[in-house]
Amino acid sequence: MADINIVRDQLPGVTDTVYLNTGTCGPLPLVAYEAMREEMSHDLTKARIDSDHFPSLGRKRNEVREAVASYVGAVPSEIAVTSSTTDGMYVAILGYRWQAGDELLMSNIEHPGGMVPSFLVKRRFGVRVKVVDIGLGGGDPADVVAAFERAITPRTRMIVISHVSYTTGAKLPLKELVTMAHAHDVLVVADAAQSYGPVALDLHDIGVDAYAGSGQKWMCGPDGTGMLYVRADRVGDFEQTFVAGGTTMGTLDYFGGSYAPALGAARFDTAGRNTILTAGQAAATRWISSELGKDWVSTRVQEMAGLAYEELSRLKGVTMVTPKEAVAGLIAFNVDGISGPDLSARLAGEHGVTIRYVTKYINNPEAARVSLHYFNTPEDLGALTEGIQSIQGTL
Amino acid sequence: MADINIVRDQLPGVTDTVYLNTGTCGPLPLVAYEAMREEMSHDLTKARIDSDHFPSLGRKRNEVREAVASYVGAVPSEIAVTSSTTDGMYVAILGYRWQAGDELLMSNIEHPGGMVPSFLVKRRFGVRVKVVDIGLGGGDPADVVAAFERAITPRTRMIVISHVSYTTGAKLPLKELVTMAHAHDVLVVADAAQSYGPVALDLHDIGVDAYAGSGQKWMCGPDGTGMLYVRADRVGDFEQTFVAGGTTMGTLDYFGGSYAPALGAARFDTAGRNTILTAGQAAATRWISSELGKDWVSTRVQEMAGLAYEELSRLKGVTMVTPKEAVAGLIAFNVDGISGPDLSARLAGEHGVTIRYVTKYINNPEAARVSLHYFNTPEDLGALTEGIQSIQGTL
Repeated sequence: MADINIVRDQLPGVTDTVYLNTGTCGPLPLVAYEAMREEMSHDLTKARIDSDHFPSLGRKRNEVREAVASYVGAVPSEIAVTSSTTDGMYVAILGYRWQAGDELLMSNIEHPGGMVPSFLVKRRFGVRVKVVDIGLGGGDPADVVAAFERAITPRTRMIVISHVSYTTGAKLPLKELVTMAHAHDVLVVADAAQSYGPVALDLHDIGVDAYAGSGQKWMCGPDGTGMLYVRADRVGDFEQTFVAGGTTMGTLDYFGGSYAPALGAARFDTAGRNTILTAGQAAATRWISSELGKDWVSTRVQEMAGLAYEELSRLKGVTMVTPKEAVAGLIAFNVDGISGPDLSARLAGEHGVTIRYVTKYINNPEAARVSLHYFNTPEDLGALTEGIQSIQGTL
Repeated sequence: MADINIVRDQLPGVTDTVYLNTGTCGPLPLVAYEAMREEMSHDLTKARIDSDHFPSLGRKRNEVREAVASYVGAVPSEIAVTSSTTDGMYVAILGYRWQAGDELLMSNIEHPGGMVPSFLVKRRFGVRVKVVDIGLGGGDPADVVAAFERAITPRTRMIVISHVSYTTGAKLPLKELVTMAHAHDVLVVADAAQSYGPVALDLHDIGVDAYAGSGQKWMCGPDGTGMLYVRADRVGDFEQTFVAGGTTMGTLDYFGGSYAPALGAARFDTAGRNTILTAGQAAATRWISSELGKDWVSTRVQEMAGLAYEELSRLKGVTMVTPKEAVAGLIAFNVDGISGPDLSARLAGEHGVTIRYVTKYINNPEAARVSLHYFNTPEDLGALTEGIQSIQGTL
């Protein structure tokens, strides 16, 4: 992979704005658009009822599984097709066979996608949810692991943790956490919304039990797509919560009141019933995986994020929130005298630069947040820093 | 509504085949296609990250709620946006606060969309699932109601029932069942896959507690769309199972471990995170609801189904399965000497006529099945009966 302009030509959305918010939604590549357009024409002009209708949906879901697996260091049977990171989180969290009094640990810098299903099992199954304070998620990785280990009791069953925090941007020591958790027979369910895409992943090496990501963010797929990885030997640790076509096998035993779940992680599919979205997700995923490659992508993200960190740090009146030693693709910061919402609105309105802000929960920072992905350029950063300085001049 | 040819011109899919399988997927109307195309172009060329991104998703979901509500005799706050009938069934069935030993009743002619979530609560929560044999679902409606009433015990909490059976095609006496069930303080969750669209509905009059339908079948929307109606005063009888953007309100109480569900049935949304699908569903639903109207649609369905029943009954060697007094839009039948799968394959391959077949579960009939919708014509029926006779001639 070489010429960034050739890559950007495949992403018309990146010319609509200075695109610094992939953490919400990435730009759609032309290959995905074309795949979707083809399916949409088919849906209009062809009867969606030929004998290949359902088999073709199944094949398309398997194409997604293959493309995702090759990007994250997994095998296709470990991948479920979902409609969002949150889908995957609730499937994994609600899927555990909770007993009243069981405990679930999560960090203080989680997204509602991990928090709300945790509160749901608290409410529905009497699970105790404990919040482990790891500050901004930076510092010595051993301290993060130790904080969780101290909170583990004989009743602890699961750790819910972001691989990269959506507020502070910190990349957490997932592999080390998993090793520690498994030593205590505790499962780890990870929110990969901000890591699936920008971080070169080898999930078998990390060893995590469940890992839920979005299709529309760093993978640049259609909205309403996602994936859930469940480690092959942990599939049986989770019950199905949702059941639909393709998630069960063969004929139901009607009077026996039983059925067999589909083999592997396909039993956890929550989406993939629309060929437009599934074809778009498969095409976008194949493109980033095969054409760009996870090593090129993650290296480029590191370069651009490093540069952004440096340039933002140099600005007067800017305080960095993201711990420097834990940067992935997100950088959170504050500008003296202007709130995150105001900065976002003015950068968009006056400078054509799209970023976002994160809102304060009790133990989360309030901040402006920029996303750096492989298609971003030094010029994008120039527009950002000039915009900030211009706004500072008018404060 | 008058000229059927003008209506058919809006549905290019109906010229691809003799379209007699709406019960699987309907043809997509041009207005829905255009709405989807517009959203797809926006996704390609515009950054999907402006400040209106999430509010616009919420507005589109509300457009779906409004269009659906006006078609089924409900109010928008009673409608959840889902991705399938099965979505709605599992949300309602898993959402009940089951205690071990509680009982759930279902008929012998249910679809896996109602059966599998029932077996899931059996497995996960120790619920007893009892099958009530109502034969083909025809005969005196009072007998159907009585069969269920005899099965009710003090532990019965829920009846799971199709409004129109996908195998026998029988329209069941839902209103009478609901009246009886409510007298015993039992909830009724209905599978509307084969009734939402072809049957003129007034859900407030029927009184059903939860009613789950598909977008892509009789409503002719995109695949992967659906709706769940939950009666306003029963929303609180169901817990959330899935939680995503828009299904909760405001800020989570992080350390308190709690949150507030969204108002009304919106808390049960499982889909609506893709503007292409949501815009397509809203456009297709508005079209059938406002341009065609449920009275015209249901009258036309009755006419066409009546005609189909008559013409099929007249054929030698054809045995009707659907009880004549309970016909809605589906007609199931068998042809001597040729199985449903073979008949479907030969009608499609040799005569350009698309029907489907239903498979035998223990207490369900095996049969060929045709769907009659508003866009079907006497010519479609001619092609069907000629095809059958031609195949009979070669047996």
